[in-house]
Amino acid sequence: MTADRIYNFSAGPSMLPVSVLEKAASEMLNYRGSGMSVMEMSHRSKVYQAIFDETKADLKSILKVPDTHEVLFMHGGATAQFAAVAMNLIGKTGKADYAVTGNFANLAKKEAAKYGDVAEACSSADKNHTYIPAQSDIKVRPDASYFYYCSNNTIYGTEWSYVPETAGIPIVCDMSSDILSKPVDVSKYGVIFAGVQKNMAPAGMAAVIIDKSLAGNELAITPTIMNYKTTIEKDSMYNTPPCYTIYMLGLVLKWVQSMGGLEAMETIKREKAALLYDYLDNSTLFKACCNDSASRSDMNVTFNTGNEELDAQFASEAGKAGMSNLKGHRNVGGMRASIYNAMPVEGVKKLVEFMKDFEMRNK
Amino acid sequence: MTADRIYNFSAGPSMLPVSVLEKAASEMLNYRGSGMSVMEMSHRSKVYQAIFDETKADLKSILKVPDTHEVLFMHGGATAQFAAVAMNLIGKTGKADYAVTGNFANLAKKEAAKYGDVAEACSSADKNHTYIPAQSDIKVRPDASYFYYCSNNTIYGTEWSYVPETAGIPIVCDMSSDILSKPVDVSKYGVIFAGVQKNMAPAGMAAVIIDKSLAGNELAITPTIMNYKTTIEKDSMYNTPPCYTIYMLGLVLKWVQSMGGLEAMETIKREKAALLYDYLDNSTLFKACCNDSASRSDMNVTFNTGNEELDAQFASEAGKAGMSNLKGHRNVGGMRASIYNAMPVEGVKKLVEFMKDFEMRNK
Repeated sequence: MTADRIYNFSAGPSMLPVSVLEKAASEMLNYRGSGMSVMEMSHRSKVYQAIFDETKADLKSILKVPDTHEVLFMHGGATAQFAAVAMNLIGKTGKADYAVTGNFANLAKKEAAKYGDVAEACSSADKNHTYIPAQSDIKVRPDASYFYYCSNNTIYGTEWSYVPETAGIPIVCDMSSDILSKPVDVSKYGVIFAGVQKNMAPAGMAAVIIDKSLAGNELAITPTIMNYKTTIEKDSMYNTPPCYTIYMLGLVLKWVQSMGGLEAMETIKREKAALLYDYLDNSTLFKACCNDSASRSDMNVTFNTGNEELDAQFASEAGKAGMSNLKGHRNVGGMRASIYNAMPVEGVKKLVEFMKDFEMRNK
Repeated sequence: MTADRIYNFSAGPSMLPVSVLEKAASEMLNYRGSGMSVMEMSHRSKVYQAIFDETKADLKSILKVPDTHEVLFMHGGATAQFAAVAMNLIGKTGKADYAVTGNFANLAKKEAAKYGDVAEACSSADKNHTYIPAQSDIKVRPDASYFYYCSNNTIYGTEWSYVPETAGIPIVCDMSSDILSKPVDVSKYGVIFAGVQKNMAPAGMAAVIIDKSLAGNELAITPTIMNYKTTIEKDSMYNTPPCYTIYMLGLVLKWVQSMGGLEAMETIKREKAALLYDYLDNSTLFKACCNDSASRSDMNVTFNTGNEELDAQFASEAGKAGMSNLKGHRNVGGMRASIYNAMPVEGVKKLVEFMKDFEMRNK
């Protein structure tokens, strides 16, 4: 850890590996002898195409994307995909079913309702989204064009520990906040998408992995920039892509590879999450918001003291001690420690030590 | 000019000021004592909000944006705006009229036709877009929701030297390739938008300046991320914005201010363009593609020798001499020198000297 940097527990945008930032800074004025910054390159140039191709190939390799699927880089983050998913896919039957396990799944469902008949396949709203529904709770209509869920709920600190069974209905998954944190069987999904600003790159783009056989069902009113078929055909360059964001993603992917790939990332994230949950489960001051261990998120650990003033005092004192953005989302209050891939184990250890000290001082 | 950098004549993405890149590199790991990169900041944090607010205020100040208008930062570049403009504005009467003076105006017109009754107000297709139509050639329907034009045509090297009269019909203008190159009377426009990757910032965003009274007419199928009314209400943060791109725009705007603002930028761009056009008009080898002086672009100077092999030889030799991306667009062939704000006068002088030398060697 560079001496003057802090541990940033923001839910996103969030920390990037220091080595990635150092590389980006060193290449800012002259990318590898090209005489220009990556920011200045024509997206149609050979030097930029090589960056693009390598980034895409690395993402395919790291996630073991099968040949049935294509990787797309699209403008606009997950919110753009909330509309794009429905515009591109719902036209097949006019229907789609959503698992509502948090704020962003709910927003995705509302957005999709502009474009067709959208139903709730299951919901965790009855307990303020503190758990993930069981397979037996999920009802998918046999004529749904797709089933949609959000694999990790940043606000509530819950994460799906299983891939739902849908009897052949294509699965669409928003993996914005846990992509690249563990191996995924891509072949089980129709569409995976992720806003990049948590585990992948700076904000402003979505990575989309799509079963190519699902493309071509878009509604006539789909903006070209959101059209999956066009984006596949043009290899994500129908228009100028967010070139520098793709370059940054490429640097992050090299870092993931250097760490040992997704198996290693999973080991590390489990270690980090266990440090926090083990402490929380034994604390007399702090308690985890999610008590169902199978529903707990390894990316966003939500907790509180049960005392709003003490919660605020904790977040404030932690900030002064070099651990920022620990205040929870307004929907749930309390605290939230977002511990994505780039958060070092040392940051989590420092947080746990600080919590222990705070507990001692506030018994 | 840093010794190992080249002069990049790309039509976009394109050169950024060296001082801007140096600043970005120096702040990459720790933005002004925050302990983090701008890429890592929560968009809801005070430190990022200050960057956002200052960038927006600087853009308003530089362009003298009146209080009737609002500045938006939206995902996706100009191509996203091709759809957004129509989805947000055409609903008022169902009709819109387009001036087709090049490739991108034509693409915008085609995209808009998905959402309503779209007509051609004028076209320069009869002479392969080598001129800008006169006011008397423009037919705007009295019940059009808006009139649309593209102020500078990168591929053909033409630029509007006047703002069309439309008898009260709101004017929408794509200023992607000449925004910030000269003062503009924003009050004359309903909507100005610009993909940022030429004169503003790295690719992946559009700056939008909108007369607030035009918002609220969006079609029901408008994706939330493209909704002008929502974007105004949420101050461009309905979802996570392209935070780093906004920061880079902020650095570029400080540079524009340091250069003397838009009056100074206009003087400099006229000087650069005159260097090229004056030489072209007197050359026996090279000729400008656009012969109507009132239609010539100061941003993209298109020219050729009339000999395809010689054109290719020129672009190749220039590349080896440190002047890249001079090959013209495939629609017109020949050469194109894009000389946006960040291209130094020295770069244009070097190009003219090189052209003179090439002419001597190839008489």
